[in-house]
Amino acid sequence: MSLIDALNWRYAVKKMNGQPAEQAKVDQIIKAAQLAPTSSGLQPFKVIVVTNQELKEKILPIAFNQSQIVDSSHLLIFAAQENYTEEGIDAVFDRMNTERGLPLDTTDAYKAQLKGMILSKSAEENFNHAARQAYIGLGMAIAEAALLKVDTTPMEGFNGSALDELLGLDKLGLKSVTLLPLGNRDEEGDWLSKLKKVRKPLEEFVIEFK
Amino acid sequence: MSLIDALNWRYAVKKMNGQPAEQAKVDQIIKAAQLAPTSSGLQPFKVIVVTNQELKEKILPIAFNQSQIVDSSHLLIFAAQENYTEEGIDAVFDRMNTERGLPLDTTDAYKAQLKGMILSKSAEENFNHAARQAYIGLGMAIAEAALLKVDTTPMEGFNGSALDELLGLDKLGLKSVTLLPLGNRDEEGDWLSKLKKVRKPLEEFVIEFK
Repeated sequence: MSLIDALNWRYAVKKMNGQPAEQAKVDQIIKAAQLAPTSSGLQPFKVIVVTNQELKEKILPIAFNQSQIVDSSHLLIFAAQENYTEEGIDAVFDRMNTERGLPLDTTDAYKAQLKGMILSKSAEENFNHAARQAYIGLGMAIAEAALLKVDTTPMEGFNGSALDELLGLDKLGLKSVTLLPLGNRDEEGDWLSKLKKVRKPLEEFVIEFK
Repeated sequence: MSLIDALNWRYAVKKMNGQPAEQAKVDQIIKAAQLAPTSSGLQPFKVIVVTNQELKEKILPIAFNQSQIVDSSHLLIFAAQENYTEEGIDAVFDRMNTERGLPLDTTDAYKAQLKGMILSKSAEENFNHAARQAYIGLGMAIAEAALLKVDTTPMEGFNGSALDELLGLDKLGLKSVTLLPLGNRDEEGDWLSKLKKVRKPLEEFVIEFK
């Protein structure tokens, strides 16, 4: 299946049927997010995977009782770093150079410039930047899920600080930005399953300079 | 090719060879961005496509002289809305209901709630929200390009306000957030083409709650 066909097949499922997404497919979905490109390769986000049903029950009211939280088999949570740190940047470049068999100081000039730019910004600016990178990963995860015919519901409707406290993400310097329950659509029970997918037409979506 | 293989094939190309990306493939890449899911279906971003070489030459210094700007055949620019507007939200829901053959007032309750939430936020908050949605589209475009073996270089290193002024995006209420040149890698001339792709290992990237 082409990605275009897959994206036409997918929709933001409102009712899941409780059948689990296959673990092997979930692994590929997470892999796609891991392979997503990010600014300077910093990957300033993590993917939290909740399969524990009791924990999903606790998350349910935090996500305004949207049933996909508990009817999904895997609840992915994309959480962005609340800021960048010098140590975090060093670790990324050290790993990069080590895995490439290069001396650790290979990227020193670039790294110093990058640190100067990033670490002079406010935590808020850096969090917004990190959150955008998380959304590239979110896009990749949704794309891979659609290609594998795993249903998803991207969700921004939840109380981020309550969720971060429940999962201890705040103590890790992370803030949740999106939920992505994985599972299978309840074709009959979902009011949205039969409705046409609507997008802005290309003439409105695209501006060309030829 | 699987998406995972495609994402392993792709990298942020530093030197393109000037060979154009096929127009039919570019059309699919833009289509993937158009089909990207966005918050409440608002699609608060546009894709600008620059093929005009003179214009690319003018953009070059605005993007710190990164050669892919002029060596790409198609320069995509993802530009997010600087804010949401009541008229914009109305237009989205009117189109949705019309294309679904539903009365225009079908979504009035939901729309009123959504407007209350969005229009009470600051322009800055709404722009940050819109920018994240643009990055889902960016992710989809990069995924589709990789599947079609079109090379890309996602770029945040450019002077956004200068670019917006040059292209008149400011007058359209848009702010450019990322560039995505499309073309073909110069395998020999690109210092990055032979280096290993490095990512955070899964044990660092993922947190599981089983």
